[in-house]
Amino acid sequence: MDRNRLQKQIDFILEIDQEKEIYRQTHLSRHGRNENDAEHAWHMAICAYLLKEYANEKIDIGKVMIMCLIHDVVEIDAGDTYAYDSEGLKTQKEREEKAADRIFGLLPDDQRDELRALFEEFEAYETAEAKFAHAMDNFQPFLLNHSNGGGDWREHNVSISQVLGRQTKTGLGSEELCGYVLEKLEEHVKSGDIREDRIKTAE
Amino acid sequence: MDRNRLQKQIDFILEIDQEKEIYRQTHLSRHGRNENDAEHAWHMAICAYLLKEYANEKIDIGKVMIMCLIHDVVEIDAGDTYAYDSEGLKTQKEREEKAADRIFGLLPDDQRDELRALFEEFEAYETAEAKFAHAMDNFQPFLLNHSNGGGDWREHNVSISQVLGRQTKTGLGSEELCGYVLEKLEEHVKSGDIREDRIKTAE
Repeated sequence: MDRNRLQKQIDFILEIDQEKEIYRQTHLSRHGRNENDAEHAWHMAICAYLLKEYANEKIDIGKVMIMCLIHDVVEIDAGDTYAYDSEGLKTQKEREEKAADRIFGLLPDDQRDELRALFEEFEAYETAEAKFAHAMDNFQPFLLNHSNGGGDWREHNVSISQVLGRQTKTGLGSEELCGYVLEKLEEHVKSGDIREDRIKTAE
Repeated sequence: MDRNRLQKQIDFILEIDQEKEIYRQTHLSRHGRNENDAEHAWHMAICAYLLKEYANEKIDIGKVMIMCLIHDVVEIDAGDTYAYDSEGLKTQKEREEKAADRIFGLLPDDQRDELRALFEEFEAYETAEAKFAHAMDNFQPFLLNHSNGGGDWREHNVSISQVLGRQTKTGLGSEELCGYVLEKLEEHVKSGDIREDRIKTAE
C-alpha cells in the first residue's frame, strides 16, 4: 500500500467534507431549512438511480451517480450560484475552473484526471450521462420546491421565463420528466407562486 | 409514461428527504456540527468510489454506491443507533425491518423489491459489495473523528475493545484500509482519546 497515495485520497475526502456547510437556496421538503450541497448531491444520485428508466438515451448509471455526487465540489471555493442569479452566473465558470484545479488537484494524478474529466463532462452537457445528471440537478430541487408549494420561487420573485429557461433543458436528459415538470410549473403560475412574464398574443 | 408509477417514485424520493434531519454522533471535520444521515451516505459513496482499489475482492462499484446511498433509509423511522449503544443495538434489527417494510413499500413493486434486496444484502454482510460498503460505513466516520483528534470517542468514553469490535470488521472489506485504521487507533489510545481496556499479559 502506497501511504502517500492514500494520504492524498484522504486529504480530498476531508476537503470535500466542507460541502456539508454550503447552503443552497432550495429548502428541504416539509418547509424545512435550506439544503446543503452534500445533501443535494446525495438526493440527486438516488433520483438518478430510481428514475433512470425515463432517460432519453441509454446511460451508464454508475457514471451518472458519481457525476452527481461530485458535481458541486467546486462550490467549496466558488460558492453556490443560484440558478436565477444573473450577476453571479457571469463569473461562475471562471470561479469554478479555478476551484476544480485546486480541489481535484489534492488527489493522486490519475484520480485527479479522472474526476476532473467527469466534472468537465458534466459541465459540457453533451453526453447522455451529463444530460441526465443535469436533468436530476434540475428535477431534485424542483421536487422539493414543488412539495413546499413553490416557496423558493415566491421568495426570489422568479418568473416563468426564468424557470423555463432552466427546466426546458431537463428535456435534454428526459423528455418524460420534463413534460411532468412543465405541467406542474403551469399550476404554480396559476396559483401565483411563479410570476407570469410571457407576452400574450391576441386571441 | 405511467403517472401512478412516477408518483410512487416521487413519494419515496420526498420521504427520504427526512434523512437530512437525522443526526449522528459523528461530527463534521474542522470540529463542526453533528453529521446527518444524508451527508454520511453521500460521503461514504464517494469514499467507496475513490478507495475501491483497496477492496479485498473484485466489486461492482455502481452497486456499492447505491448500497451506500440507501443503507440508512430505515433510520427515518428507526432512528440512528450509535455504534457503541449496547441497549439500542438489541432492538435495532426489529425496528429497522419494520421501517424497511414501510419506506421501501412506497416504491413501485419492482423497485421496492430491488432496493429492499440491496438493503438486506448490505445487512447480511456476505457479498463483496456488502463487505466493502460496510468498510466505508466504518471508515468514513473514523476519518472525520480522527481528523478532529478523536473527540467523538472522548465524548462517549469509548474503549479500544469497543472500537476494535467494529473496526476489525473493516478488514472484511479491505485489509489495507483496516491496517491503516488499526495503526491510527493505537495512536488515539496512546493520547488518551480512546480508553484502554485490554488486559495486559505479564511481560
